[in-house]
Amino acid sequence: MKAARFHGREDIRIEDVPEPEVRPGAVKIAVDWCGICGTDLHEYLEGPIFVPPAGEPHPVTGEEAPVVMGHEFAGKVAEVGDGVDGITVGDAVVVEPIHRCGECAACSTGQYNTCEKLGFVGLSGGGGGFAEFVVVDAEWVHPLGDIPTDVGALIEPLAVGYHAVELSGVEEGQTAVVFGMGPIGLVTTGCLKARGVRVIAVEVADARKDKAATVGADEIIDPSAQDVLATISDLTDGVGADVAFECAGIDDVLNNAIACVKSRGRVVNVAIWGHPATVEMGPLTLNEVDVVGSIGYCGDHPATIAMVADGSIDTAALITGRIALDDLVEEGFRQLIDNKAENVKILVHP
Amino acid sequence: MKAARFHGREDIRIEDVPEPEVRPGAVKIAVDWCGICGTDLHEYLEGPIFVPPAGEPHPVTGEEAPVVMGHEFAGKVAEVGDGVDGITVGDAVVVEPIHRCGECAACSTGQYNTCEKLGFVGLSGGGGGFAEFVVVDAEWVHPLGDIPTDVGALIEPLAVGYHAVELSGVEEGQTAVVFGMGPIGLVTTGCLKARGVRVIAVEVADARKDKAATVGADEIIDPSAQDVLATISDLTDGVGADVAFECAGIDDVLNNAIACVKSRGRVVNVAIWGHPATVEMGPLTLNEVDVVGSIGYCGDHPATIAMVADGSIDTAALITGRIALDDLVEEGFRQLIDNKAENVKILVHP
Repeated sequence: MKAARFHGREDIRIEDVPEPEVRPGAVKIAVDWCGICGTDLHEYLEGPIFVPPAGEPHPVTGEEAPVVMGHEFAGKVAEVGDGVDGITVGDAVVVEPIHRCGECAACSTGQYNTCEKLGFVGLSGGGGGFAEFVVVDAEWVHPLGDIPTDVGALIEPLAVGYHAVELSGVEEGQTAVVFGMGPIGLVTTGCLKARGVRVIAVEVADARKDKAATVGADEIIDPSAQDVLATISDLTDGVGADVAFECAGIDDVLNNAIACVKSRGRVVNVAIWGHPATVEMGPLTLNEVDVVGSIGYCGDHPATIAMVADGSIDTAALITGRIALDDLVEEGFRQLIDNKAENVKILVHP
Repeated sequence: MKAARFHGREDIRIEDVPEPEVRPGAVKIAVDWCGICGTDLHEYLEGPIFVPPAGEPHPVTGEEAPVVMGHEFAGKVAEVGDGVDGITVGDAVVVEPIHRCGECAACSTGQYNTCEKLGFVGLSGGGGGFAEFVVVDAEWVHPLGDIPTDVGALIEPLAVGYHAVELSGVEEGQTAVVFGMGPIGLVTTGCLKARGVRVIAVEVADARKDKAATVGADEIIDPSAQDVLATISDLTDGVGADVAFECAGIDDVLNNAIACVKSRGRVVNVAIWGHPATVEMGPLTLNEVDVVGSIGYCGDHPATIAMVADGSIDTAALITGRIALDDLVEEGFRQLIDNKAENVKILVHP
């Protein structure tokens, strides 16, 4: 079958690989759509990061580069392995693309997203969504019901936003500030709006400011033209926001996030940082703010699917392109790298 | 009466000042003992910080330098103002030395320790404990019962530790790591032990390691001789600590605190930082750790007094000197600055 495999930095090849075979307890899925993630771009430009390099097999999968990429995918069940109940050939499904050891302290408390050997389908081996077929253990297969599989491919990034919102503890009617309107900031905004939270978005790029409006941001602050902290203070009657989300990975943004929340407010860091952060500890301490990290998702897929199914979130603005697998690098990766602000999700059909 | 007043950096003078007069709703206290705090040393060496400089009156007290210093004090009630109930002349009391505006968002939710105009008796005007008498509003006067006033002078720093422990959410039988065995690390350790928490103390100075043992630390790690993270991992069967306390204000310490806790563990920053922190965001994010700031106390005095009264905490090791007010600078401040590791609390008797 045709698949996109990571061989090395800036070396992703569309090639023929053996079609995976279903095994007991697992499900074979014909992929309809797979989104390109910022993590995929990082691997392409700076990797291998999550991809296990040749000679260093992943501790859970035992695989090493080259590996099939793509972890934001949905499709139809093509075959069901022995011992799998409740999943039928033809079902529309999305995969929670987790590899976890199942033995470490985090796994033993159910917090598998912080597994010390955490890996991802589509990055760490076990196939991926940039391929015609993938086989995954049934526990990670979530039924989409009537949700079409192109929207289903958005469930994975939406679950990242959903998880971050859960960790924030924000409640209906409260105010959140989301810093950075890249794909993760946008899905976080959408998940906040689905919960009835007022969202103040902070973003400098015009194209992304437009996207923020389409996913429902109530206010949009442009830090190149406005005083971010003074504006948030005005918009919250001097109280500060209830929570803030750092979706940019920039020192000034993190410090603004800490400074913009109320006494004992919470900041959720969703960004993956490429460098240590320089943090002003005074505002954190004197206002008893807490900063918590959020990574991926952990049991959030069913609620995320329900949120999409009941129409609480409008996903139309999130899909900005659809391409064929053969065009993955030129019309997918390069497009997202060269026209970052204009694009959110480009979906790939294998 | 005799009082120690801050005039400027390295300029604290013992001088005669007018004796304060009791007013309606307030209580006049004859100070028995007042401890010297690290904050006092910062004012002396680098101030004015919390002290309002001449020409810049504090927004709550309206006072400016010179101001009477000393905020860790206990004494006997000398006079009771009109309208004060439940406090009698001769009562042993400790003062919660807060000035707060009462109007900001934090005050309106009861979180007065994060008041935007927060000040302290003994730093921001309103008299202080390095004086024969002080007059404070009755709401900040807490009865000591049978606790002697020398131990009563420790209630204020103990309340700082108590508040930090409360914010951590740690429970009996869990494991905490306390980084830095200065006065705040020691009182935090004592408060943790009073709650039945196992404490791993991290400290490099021999004199302070000895103090850690006297307040009940179960394990003591010397980072100059041991691998801090590997040792904590071993001591927690690879799980990590439940919570950690940053009582040092050092980049490497904060990063170790983040890295030493379990999945979704909590780090409480109690340190006052003189510089921005350089924080590795990877461990915070990938382990979903949260870092929360803790400042002072907020409603913690009664529980702290009860903890001392019922013998849950041994305070004997915390008092390392007793001096007269006339000797405040030479035998108090200079002693604490020059022999930092040997001293915890020097109490001053006016």
